[in-house]
Amino acid sequence: MRNNITRRNFVKKTAAAGLVASLGAPNILMGKDDRKVRLAFIGTGMRGRNHISLAAIRDDVTITAICDIDPESIAKAKEIIKKAGKKEPEVYGKDEWDFKNMLLRDDIDGVIIATPWLWHTKMAVETMKAGKYAGVEVSAANTLEECWDLVNTHEQTGMPCMILENVCYRKDVMAVLNMVRKGMFGEMIHAECGYQHDLRGVKLNDGKSAYGKGVEFGEKGYSESKWRTWHSVNRNGDIYPTHGIGPVAEYLNINRGNRFVSLTSTATKSRGLHNYIVENGGEDHPNAKVEFKLGDVITTVIKTANEESIIVSHDTNLPRPYSLGFRVQGTKGIWMDVNQSLYIEGKSQPHQWENTEKYFEEYNHPLWKNYSKLAEGAGHGGMDWFVINAFVESVKRKAPTPMDAYDAAAWSAITPLSEQSIANGSDAVAFPDFTRGQWMRREPVFALDGDY
Amino acid sequence: MRNNITRRNFVKKTAAAGLVASLGAPNILMGKDDRKVRLAFIGTGMRGRNHISLAAIRDDVTITAICDIDPESIAKAKEIIKKAGKKEPEVYGKDEWDFKNMLLRDDIDGVIIATPWLWHTKMAVETMKAGKYAGVEVSAANTLEECWDLVNTHEQTGMPCMILENVCYRKDVMAVLNMVRKGMFGEMIHAECGYQHDLRGVKLNDGKSAYGKGVEFGEKGYSESKWRTWHSVNRNGDIYPTHGIGPVAEYLNINRGNRFVSLTSTATKSRGLHNYIVENGGEDHPNAKVEFKLGDVITTVIKTANEESIIVSHDTNLPRPYSLGFRVQGTKGIWMDVNQSLYIEGKSQPHQWENTEKYFEEYNHPLWKNYSKLAEGAGHGGMDWFVINAFVESVKRKAPTPMDAYDAAAWSAITPLSEQSIANGSDAVAFPDFTRGQWMRREPVFALDGDY
Repeated sequence: MRNNITRRNFVKKTAAAGLVASLGAPNILMGKDDRKVRLAFIGTGMRGRNHISLAAIRDDVTITAICDIDPESIAKAKEIIKKAGKKEPEVYGKDEWDFKNMLLRDDIDGVIIATPWLWHTKMAVETMKAGKYAGVEVSAANTLEECWDLVNTHEQTGMPCMILENVCYRKDVMAVLNMVRKGMFGEMIHAECGYQHDLRGVKLNDGKSAYGKGVEFGEKGYSESKWRTWHSVNRNGDIYPTHGIGPVAEYLNINRGNRFVSLTSTATKSRGLHNYIVENGGEDHPNAKVEFKLGDVITTVIKTANEESIIVSHDTNLPRPYSLGFRVQGTKGIWMDVNQSLYIEGKSQPHQWENTEKYFEEYNHPLWKNYSKLAEGAGHGGMDWFVINAFVESVKRKAPTPMDAYDAAAWSAITPLSEQSIANGSDAVAFPDFTRGQWMRREPVFALDGDY
Repeated sequence: MRNNITRRNFVKKTAAAGLVASLGAPNILMGKDDRKVRLAFIGTGMRGRNHISLAAIRDDVTITAICDIDPESIAKAKEIIKKAGKKEPEVYGKDEWDFKNMLLRDDIDGVIIATPWLWHTKMAVETMKAGKYAGVEVSAANTLEECWDLVNTHEQTGMPCMILENVCYRKDVMAVLNMVRKGMFGEMIHAECGYQHDLRGVKLNDGKSAYGKGVEFGEKGYSESKWRTWHSVNRNGDIYPTHGIGPVAEYLNINRGNRFVSLTSTATKSRGLHNYIVENGGEDHPNAKVEFKLGDVITTVIKTANEESIIVSHDTNLPRPYSLGFRVQGTKGIWMDVNQSLYIEGKSQPHQWENTEKYFEEYNHPLWKNYSKLAEGAGHGGMDWFVINAFVESVKRKAPTPMDAYDAAAWSAITPLSEQSIANGSDAVAFPDFTRGQWMRREPVFALDGDY
């Protein structure tokens, strides 16, 4: 069973066999590794094509097949692959379930899934069942049952499922991870994070452009507004938790010496999307009658087995600057990203915030030291490069992925659990232990070194 | 019953009678008002003497009596009063209950209470029963029963009880209040606040100086460490909520068109105070054996009747810069104090934080416009001046105080309610409606104009 191999063990073994460069420099830079990874892609929309672009320029990747029901986005994806000088991929997409035909192929090692949320788990499960690595976009699951589907299928098939949480690789986020592991903040006590991003122009558009004006969604919408907005109409909970909780889970060793124990969640009234429709489409627009269930601000507070607390905010319907609102606090210091400041006892001037710049340079994570040149130009400030690189390198080594099915389940579970809590007057709700107790024995694997 | 007089009505009446200056300039600056307010003080420690200093320099205040069981602090208070050129006050303090003898006097209009927390309610209740205005330091009550004591006594006696929450008068806090009332942030949706202040050196000291080194408290401690620290030993909840919640309550019109409905509260492990004792006193110091019940970070989330949410943080045992962590968010914009920034839709550059400076100048509250010269030099950046001024002016006019017994009760109730929630696994706990339904009809009175 592959899931019994820890990455640390794997690295030891392969290092002994001379497969890993002995001087610590990454394989890909040393040019010593000619193994190829054969990838397929389900979902070639904007997010999928971003991943395809990053895969297409890699010498160690072959793109076997791509799958989408939208011919236009398939055409755009083929163009990207062609421009990169790669062989034309096989195309699937005659209907919504054609991905299962693609998964029958024996020339695919891993599958990147970047489809609407409601398809993520189904596709990841089928991918693992087909004996292939699953790389699934965020969130990975929509219900608690789907969280269990990911975990159970992983355990039954032995195939890894990596949640493609790019923010775990953000440069500042990784520098802080480095500092956390070096004990700069002391023992972890409290963290904050969230997804605070004015998405009104994404959830609502004119049916022609993804971020344009307009107040349409669903059938009349374009891109994400076609499917994403239904979650704001019908669900009241933190419907997009992983960009915030992913990095915090790494700081707190969730599922690896620690776990989420319970949460409470509180929703405000819903005003932002309705107001936006009225202001931009008029009171008589049919969508002005839509009742959005999603509260404008959702505040979730998680308790961990190691007795830390985590505030997770979801705030996507109001005018505001983008912020993931990170705060990491321990017995020796605190970091906040909104003011780009930290305080380290004994280093910072007493009672004064200090700019992070100097620290983030000094504690730049080895991955960023090794790969920043390659990562630059990739999406979202470089972090997209790292997440695809980690997937490809894991597949190449037949090793566990640095973020796995247990992470996918625990992080994604925040959505249905927060809905439950809100529906029950904010009472506390217990997290399932998706590791079935193994969190006590599992060890951290994410970004332990500068390899991948 | 005095509590049936709204301040608005009072201002109308007195204006009609020519008592309030017709041009809008404050009475005190116009020198038209020679009414005197006769004050007494219970508690002449550091906080009490700060209030005494502010009262002593006012022409409209007579200091009738002071009360404290500590002769040293009585002596210091008398010195302040003497230096200000005021008549020597009568002194009470032969035992802890001597304040009741002081309250028998008929030459006292109002009493300022700045004693250890466990005395606040008892003293405020006796003050009201004696037919005098009570001005009580924060928090005003320690248990739910004490919250009701304040409200019930106020209703039975008709005497006002003002919670002396100075942060409601902080310059930026009041500018934001002005902006909230002008609709700059749109409809209120969410707020954050708290008390985030490294108090390790206050809760623990050397028994000689209030903020010095040392790891003593209780009998061997000095100043606040004599009594405040016991709350960290014995209670697990937000034990100091009002500096944060006071201003937010004004923004959201709590008890005046809105109310707190319920809260959840989550506590982390307790590490900070123990670590501090070990680091500064050694592992063998007797206090290294003390088990502090107070979690280092307490996160409380309140829901209001108008469906806003409020995060209240309590964080006093860890190394960190001071921050009350204000955030005010509505349908049109957001303010955060930690990065001194705001975003106002249609004014700020899209998706960009904007510095607050320009706005706070433009929307400087009329109170600060009128009184900043007098306030400067008073404690805590001027806000202490305003809170004493508001008390004195209320007494002078025999008007309701701008913060009252219902505010004192609702704000202070966060402590026992958060303890309940934490003790019950963070389940939601309902707030009592201290107004008995009158919140639906009561109107805002706090700082409506530039008068007091």
